Amino acid sequence: MRIILCGFGVVAQSLAKLLDSRSEDLYAQYGIKPRIVGVFDSSGSAVESSGIDLSKLIAIKKKNGSIKNYSNVKNRMSGVEMINNLDAEVLIETTVSNYKDAEPGMSHITDAIKRGMHVISVNKGPLALAFPSLMELAIYNNVLLRFSGTVGGGTPILDYGKNSLRGERITSFKGILNGTTNYILTNMANGMSFDAALKDAKSKGYVEADESLDLDGLDAAAKLVILANWIMDMKVTLPDIQCTGIRNVTSDDIKNAAKNKCAIKLIASCNKDLVVGPKQISLDDPVCVNGTLNAIAYTSEHSGTQIIIGAGAGGIETASSILRDLLDIRKEISID
Amino acid sequence: MRIILCGFGVVAQSLAKLLDSRSEDLYAQYGIKPRIVGVFDSSGSAVESSGIDLSKLIAIKKKNGSIKNYSNVKNRMSGVEMINNLDAEVLIETTVSNYKDAEPGMSHITDAIKRGMHVISVNKGPLALAFPSLMELAIYNNVLLRFSGTVGGGTPILDYGKNSLRGERITSFKGILNGTTNYILTNMANGMSFDAALKDAKSKGYVEADESLDLDGLDAAAKLVILANWIMDMKVTLPDIQCTGIRNVTSDDIKNAAKNKCAIKLIASCNKDLVVGPKQISLDDPVCVNGTLNAIAYTSEHSGTQIIIGAGAGGIETASSILRDLLDIRKEISID
Repeated sequence: MRIILCGFGVVAQSLAKLLDSRSEDLYAQYGIKPRIVGVFDSSGSAVESSGIDLSKLIAIKKKNGSIKNYSNVKNRMSGVEMINNLDAEVLIETTVSNYKDAEPGMSHITDAIKRGMHVISVNKGPLALAFPSLMELAIYNNVLLRFSGTVGGGTPILDYGKNSLRGERITSFKGILNGTTNYILTNMANGMSFDAALKDAKSKGYVEADESLDLDGLDAAAKLVILANWIMDMKVTLPDIQCTGIRNVTSDDIKNAAKNKCAIKLIASCNKDLVVGPKQISLDDPVCVNGTLNAIAYTSEHSGTQIIIGAGAGGIETASSILRDLLDIRKEISID
Repeated sequence: MRIILCGFGVVAQSLAKLLDSRSEDLYAQYGIKPRIVGVFDSSGSAVESSGIDLSKLIAIKKKNGSIKNYSNVKNRMSGVEMINNLDAEVLIETTVSNYKDAEPGMSHITDAIKRGMHVISVNKGPLALAFPSLMELAIYNNVLLRFSGTVGGGTPILDYGKNSLRGERITSFKGILNGTTNYILTNMANGMSFDAALKDAKSKGYVEADESLDLDGLDAAAKLVILANWIMDMKVTLPDIQCTGIRNVTSDDIKNAAKNKCAIKLIASCNKDLVVGPKQISLDDPVCVNGTLNAIAYTSEHSGTQIIIGAGAGGIETASSILRDLLDIRKEISID
């Protein structure tokens, strides 16, 4: 299985380590031998058709902050050139989410699909802006588009709703889909001001470079788009979400909630309407988790309400979700 | 798909209603047309090779407390005779769990497997006493043995551990697997004595006819056996579980736990040893759910700890898990 890797940040490096450390086991257990034949990020690119030496690449990135010195050959191939010229079966897209035009991820994904590659994206931007049309494009080109890591990081929230409840009808769901705002609101419930809580979250590296993605609810809204399309078969994109962030949540709001034995959480919900916004929820509700945890409650027709809780992010966790997608693609290829 | 149904209690009747109400939708969506051709319970049996009229059967059971008057023909076929003579592809075993010799469920299951039928069991007894050998028998006879409803009722706890985390290694797990003892312990945490809490649970119909199955931890231990075999590939049976029930938990124990911001819960855990017993767990731990809820925390190598929470029992919930198993079997048959 020949793979092109777009981006070489935390998640991509975790994936490289994971594939490297488990190569024998993956072959023995699943008959899968992933070879990354091309990697590019904003700083440069590396190509090796027999498979890149991943530990060497990680060491070079660590030393130079860039991957361009992987080989002596001056490799000037851009990302788009790589996707359009290299032989590969799978594209893994890990560049940063952008909710304006979703570039450069959008071009990576559409170019790869048109060339007949299966695509795994942990970049939420293209899916948030164009889920229905990307899925249509993938089906038309007879390839798989997978994105397990976009919601819940390593926690298989999408897979649970799609597969574990087969035969069931999910009628609604609600959840905490953004760990950063949950961390800030938890801090505030423990007595911190919004500003102090935000500062603490930043010092721990929990806040996106563009803090608006967390604080204004965009990240949660993007995840809600993906869930609504994948689990509920809705054809929606980001503008369909009614979205409010947490900037206007005050310490008084939180104290008032506590009086009602409630906490204020940024809740994404799908129940006729698609809404992201701060809501009071009971401390007894299992969805009411603290810290950076994510939680989702699926309500189904016959099996009641079921809650899944887990870390919603993290390099190695998200890398493990990419591996799950790779195994799905491997299975699909072998059935064909 | 021709089905024999063993037992016609709450779960089996819920299944009959579910299949009846969703027959068109199941055919349209999944290409599955389940026909129950034989039903038996301790009171009698009903047979109809073109498919039993399920609403009629439910009405007769309600009116007479027995299914034997379904047809005018005097039908004296016993369960074992039915399994050994009727043409069917699937056996669904719903008789009462028994942890002494697992009969009559054990004979139903082994006879059906030997005749080449796929088996769905919501009866935990045979699996608790003989999981490894039953699985071996099923593999040898090239049939599927499924049991989603035995753990978590309608909450797909087994499926999550087995399938949603594919590519991952689950290293340990712990959980609340028995809703009845959770309800009693929750009552005690709210100030009731053990006896009053038990009485309340009985009045709500939460306690098994043989209360020892709940109170002495046998039900939780049986579920732990099933999880250990299915998720961790261990070859274990009921005697391998170190099991303590909740009869000796006092109100003082619970008050002391509360002082540590903990609750006492009957925890089933797999971490080298397989143990069921009352334990203090932190009120902040998402596994610490109240009422009749079940919860399990899977700890995995790369994706962190993930918690699933849901109703652990209920007729319609468990029936929905049987439907999931039927869909799996349908899929398997169509691939063959």
